[in-house]
Amino acid sequence: MPTENHHHEYDRVHEHADWHFHEHDANHPHEHGGVNDYMQAVAEYRKTFATKKDVLEETPDPAVKELLHRMDELGQETIFDRFDAQKPQCSFGLAGVCCKFCNMGPCKITKKSPKGVCGADADLIVARNLLRSAAAGVAQHGAHAREILLTMKFVAEGKLNLPILGEKKLRAVCQAFGIETRGQSAKRLVGKLADVMLDDLSRPLPDDYRTIRSLAPAERQAVWDKLGIIPISAYQEVFDAYHRTGVGTDGDYKSILKAFLRCGLAFCFTGVVASNIGTDVLFGTGHRATSKVNVGALKKGYVNIAVHGHLPTLVSEIVRIGHLPEMVELAREKGAKGIQFYGICCSCLAAMYRYEGVIPLSNAVGAELILGTGALDLWVADVQDVYPAIMDVARCFKTTVVTTSDSARLPGAEHYAYDYRHSNIGDTEKLARKIVTRAIESFADRRDVAVSIPQYEVTADIGFTAENVGAQFDDFQKLYEALKDGRILGIVNMVGCSNPRVVYEKATLDVADVLLENNVLILTNGCASFPLLKLGYCSKEGAERCGKSLKEFVQEYDVPPVWHVGECIDNTRSSGIFGGVAAKAGQAIKDMPYAFASPEWSNEKGLDASLAFRLFGIDSYHCVEPPVQGSTAVEKFLKEDTKDLLGAVMTVNVNGRELGEKIVADMKEARKKLGWG
Amino acid sequence: MPTENHHHEYDRVHEHADWHFHEHDANHPHEHGGVNDYMQAVAEYRKTFATKKDVLEETPDPAVKELLHRMDELGQETIFDRFDAQKPQCSFGLAGVCCKFCNMGPCKITKKSPKGVCGADADLIVARNLLRSAAAGVAQHGAHAREILLTMKFVAEGKLNLPILGEKKLRAVCQAFGIETRGQSAKRLVGKLADVMLDDLSRPLPDDYRTIRSLAPAERQAVWDKLGIIPISAYQEVFDAYHRTGVGTDGDYKSILKAFLRCGLAFCFTGVVASNIGTDVLFGTGHRATSKVNVGALKKGYVNIAVHGHLPTLVSEIVRIGHLPEMVELAREKGAKGIQFYGICCSCLAAMYRYEGVIPLSNAVGAELILGTGALDLWVADVQDVYPAIMDVARCFKTTVVTTSDSARLPGAEHYAYDYRHSNIGDTEKLARKIVTRAIESFADRRDVAVSIPQYEVTADIGFTAENVGAQFDDFQKLYEALKDGRILGIVNMVGCSNPRVVYEKATLDVADVLLENNVLILTNGCASFPLLKLGYCSKEGAERCGKSLKEFVQEYDVPPVWHVGECIDNTRSSGIFGGVAAKAGQAIKDMPYAFASPEWSNEKGLDASLAFRLFGIDSYHCVEPPVQGSTAVEKFLKEDTKDLLGAVMTVNVNGRELGEKIVADMKEARKKLGWG
Repeated sequence: MPTENHHHEYDRVHEHADWHFHEHDANHPHEHGGVNDYMQAVAEYRKTFATKKDVLEETPDPAVKELLHRMDELGQETIFDRFDAQKPQCSFGLAGVCCKFCNMGPCKITKKSPKGVCGADADLIVARNLLRSAAAGVAQHGAHAREILLTMKFVAEGKLNLPILGEKKLRAVCQAFGIETRGQSAKRLVGKLADVMLDDLSRPLPDDYRTIRSLAPAERQAVWDKLGIIPISAYQEVFDAYHRTGVGTDGDYKSILKAFLRCGLAFCFTGVVASNIGTDVLFGTGHRATSKVNVGALKKGYVNIAVHGHLPTLVSEIVRIGHLPEMVELAREKGAKGIQFYGICCSCLAAMYRYEGVIPLSNAVGAELILGTGALDLWVADVQDVYPAIMDVARCFKTTVVTTSDSARLPGAEHYAYDYRHSNIGDTEKLARKIVTRAIESFADRRDVAVSIPQYEVTADIGFTAENVGAQFDDFQKLYEALKDGRILGIVNMVGCSNPRVVYEKATLDVADVLLENNVLILTNGCASFPLLKLGYCSKEGAERCGKSLKEFVQEYDVPPVWHVGECIDNTRSSGIFGGVAAKAGQAIKDMPYAFASPEWSNEKGLDASLAFRLFGIDSYHCVEPPVQGSTAVEKFLKEDTKDLLGAVMTVNVNGRELGEKIVADMKEARKKLGWG
Repeated sequence: MPTENHHHEYDRVHEHADWHFHEHDANHPHEHGGVNDYMQAVAEYRKTFATKKDVLEETPDPAVKELLHRMDELGQETIFDRFDAQKPQCSFGLAGVCCKFCNMGPCKITKKSPKGVCGADADLIVARNLLRSAAAGVAQHGAHAREILLTMKFVAEGKLNLPILGEKKLRAVCQAFGIETRGQSAKRLVGKLADVMLDDLSRPLPDDYRTIRSLAPAERQAVWDKLGIIPISAYQEVFDAYHRTGVGTDGDYKSILKAFLRCGLAFCFTGVVASNIGTDVLFGTGHRATSKVNVGALKKGYVNIAVHGHLPTLVSEIVRIGHLPEMVELAREKGAKGIQFYGICCSCLAAMYRYEGVIPLSNAVGAELILGTGALDLWVADVQDVYPAIMDVARCFKTTVVTTSDSARLPGAEHYAYDYRHSNIGDTEKLARKIVTRAIESFADRRDVAVSIPQYEVTADIGFTAENVGAQFDDFQKLYEALKDGRILGIVNMVGCSNPRVVYEKATLDVADVLLENNVLILTNGCASFPLLKLGYCSKEGAERCGKSLKEFVQEYDVPPVWHVGECIDNTRSSGIFGGVAAKAGQAIKDMPYAFASPEWSNEKGLDASLAFRLFGIDSYHCVEPPVQGSTAVEKFLKEDTKDLLGAVMTVNVNGRELGEKIVADMKEARKKLGWG
């Protein structure tokens, strides 16, 4: 039992529970409790914020520019208008020194009021805000995981009839968890695996976290044990975070930051890893393929359905039903040429390499623009990154919006959904059929809507997984060799949502350009992958953007220089590739020339995603600041102190090219330490 | 199985999932999405905020005034100074229209920027902020519950050696839960009961919530089923709340408010009810007693130990150890006359009626003042309402502060604590012994500290429970008769933390005065009970404050007019009394002349506590506004719409006497409907 084995560790940790990450640095005298110059820092930072004008001039995708101009002509506001209208953003909020955690406030830290009503100082308030954001991210990705785990349970119990498409992965993962697989049916194993991961999601008792003990590298487990940050369960870490940050509970910012790290592990191993495992087990790992990308692929005359969100269960059924001859026939009866699926954000990325022809159009920030083409008949939204603003555009273009989760409704949308208790999970096919039928009706009702489709479209290579990369590169050996001899300088995982603080999609491509020029191989998924997909970085032609040795390498293996691994939970695939190559090198992940970059991150999950990579010892790089400038101690914790604790830090530079140069420099430093020259 | 029985309900709810609480009201045209006049409302509200000067002049307890003057002389700041320094408080925060839930912001709703960057409008932002506060409250009281449930498990498993002092209650509750009690040892039953309540805390699967099905009135269960607000588990509701409020998930403020109600039930039945049951089962229900109250009871020359916080396990052991002859002897060796315990906030209230002589001194807001007496040698703090500001005063007066929870540390405090995983639960006695020994050392080290004790002290009657009230009043029959014939006009449960927005402790007493004058019987617990204790309302002399018929009633039964039922989780005791009397009357609780008042509430738990009573159909009354003035729809939901949905609304009036008058008027209205004249 892992629980028994590790009690000794906890005892030891208990005795050394007081961290010394801050005071030990003689160059940074202890500034705890003071009020720093955040007003100036925030004022400087705010000056760098992009304007809508900047976006119109500098955003790299011409389709985005064209659609933005169209929206302007129609007098339809977009996210960039709203961002400009919010200026100037609140200094206290940007610096993290605003506290609304009790009703004695709101409080803010200033020279005149250096403490909140309860006595909390800047360090404590900034740390508490940071922890609450991270905990919310755990709840968000964790809710995604729970949906997948419930689907596994429903399948195992026969309440939902789904084929199990990833049986090979299922058996491999069960073995890693120590679940006996011989003589067990796939259905039975799905139930057992779900139970173990549900325990890690939900246990209240202080037992061990099995996903970490089964899957994490021993070197990392030792680091996390020493810090005392192994979670009890994802639920419990979220509970604890909102407990300890309540008024008059945890008064020590260091203790809060320890909980922050614990949340990062719960986010990683339940939110991301369990979601990824469950999705791959149920829906298959997908396969290498090519896909059309961008709005030019929108087909006039078809029943056009967009899927937007994150949850695969209903989306996969909708796509299946939409491909049935009887539904295609029904569409033809209504005058359509057929039924075509598109995708926004992660739902589409998960679907595009599993099903034929689910065409990726845009990340979340661009969703309004896509609706502005007028080409969509129905838009299926579930959870996360579905901004309520889409409803105004949908109304204008008569696009029917359907919501499918009880946790995410939109006024004005039609609601064909699982209820809160999933009591109607058995109606999955019925719901999917209703939604596709509704799309066909919507097509018939929308004949008078003006459609305007910018003609930009590319073909991208997609569907990279740790499994198929391993298979192609001799169990990662060839990748390791190319890395060691310098043909590949390093490997970066580029992800992250978008953020109007920087020019839309430009920051991501600026970073990517520098990386490719310097022979850095890129893995990508989620929102950040859209500009890379749309602008040809994920195509073989992308080789032209590379330095000499990377160009030769990708041409030799007939791959693009940016490998698309899927949706946000597919960070697990990048970790798998990182881990596979490090194992061949015989090195700890933290010592490898790896990096994580989410240049344009914006949501609460994004805070955890970068933290999760830093917990693995991989530095993270961003063009957007987290709200910590109000506490020198907390900012230093993120940007300096975790080097000793975890082997990784956060780096922020609002200039994408400079950020790319920093990644390259840090990789060269790592290579020097490895003796890889 | 309750789960099976209620599936039908969920299906029905699913079909009628769209609430119509708002649009149906012809007098209030649909204002969704607009920007209301919150700036003016907030400006008006802010004008009513108390100043430190107001507190010095008007706070009712002369001991508080004296201590405040002393702090001033010493140049020691207090919460009232910090509240004044925070003025003017942020309008956006006060109105609830500030959103920091993603890193594209912060956003605020104004006429110029009527939507956030994502498109969220005022209704959505206000509702999301409200839900997040409520969910944090669930996590806070829920963490308290989890600690008690873990203690039950540790006792059942033999990891912690504690007597089970509430065996009668244990067997009664087990029977209500359908747990077979015959032939089962108390220890075994404690484990079984803990398992059931742990399930309600933590289940991820959508099964039924057993505590509600076992303990809630059928009439209420029907109301909650119809609304679709039965929780899955406390953990899951918190998770869901932070998921759905994340950027781009739930875009419908009504759907958010439904989750808010669900959180209220999780708060009630896990946070409060499970905590109360577990505490009573383990530590006994206590008994009627008298206790000295207020700082005049501080004893010079004794080793003076204050307990501050909420968790009983270690506190009860500390009190037990402190009473051992060997420890008293050790204290005498160091020159002390003995060892004396005092209490701040709930820890003390829980202890005072269970152990001899734990003297209540103050609620959380007054903690700094108590330290300012210089009389305390050691201060044991666990979780919740332990403001970090106490450390500055403790340092000044050399009071040793000890923290005992891994979730709540204080820089400068000594940490003798359970670790995060409770791996050292077996060391409970050792920790307690260490802490009492440390207090004795501290006594010896503090001989030079100036002590100044205002000489105010009263004796209060304490220890009311549903059980002993039932026993005294003929199974509530006599209470019902007095209520029906008008000798008692109604019953109010008065609770709630303090809030410097109103004059400290004055709002509570202003309300109480009006109630007693009008023959309203008062139950009280938690922070609000301190002014009632200190100023004699909980003493038999309090009868002089009552109207004629209530005075005669309390004198007949030899009880005070304000019944002290304990700490914050002992709201369950008040509910028990409310339920017992309503049962005798044969009426639904919502139709009875009952009220809940938390005049000075301030923390996130306080938001849930009043919600929990409204969920039972009992109106709630306050002198402090929640941050909802920025949304007409959300404010109306709380203050009007829930009358139809739940049978109860929230009423706010910053003037305590006016609030009291409103309670009396509403009770007279309820009595009229009952035909009770």
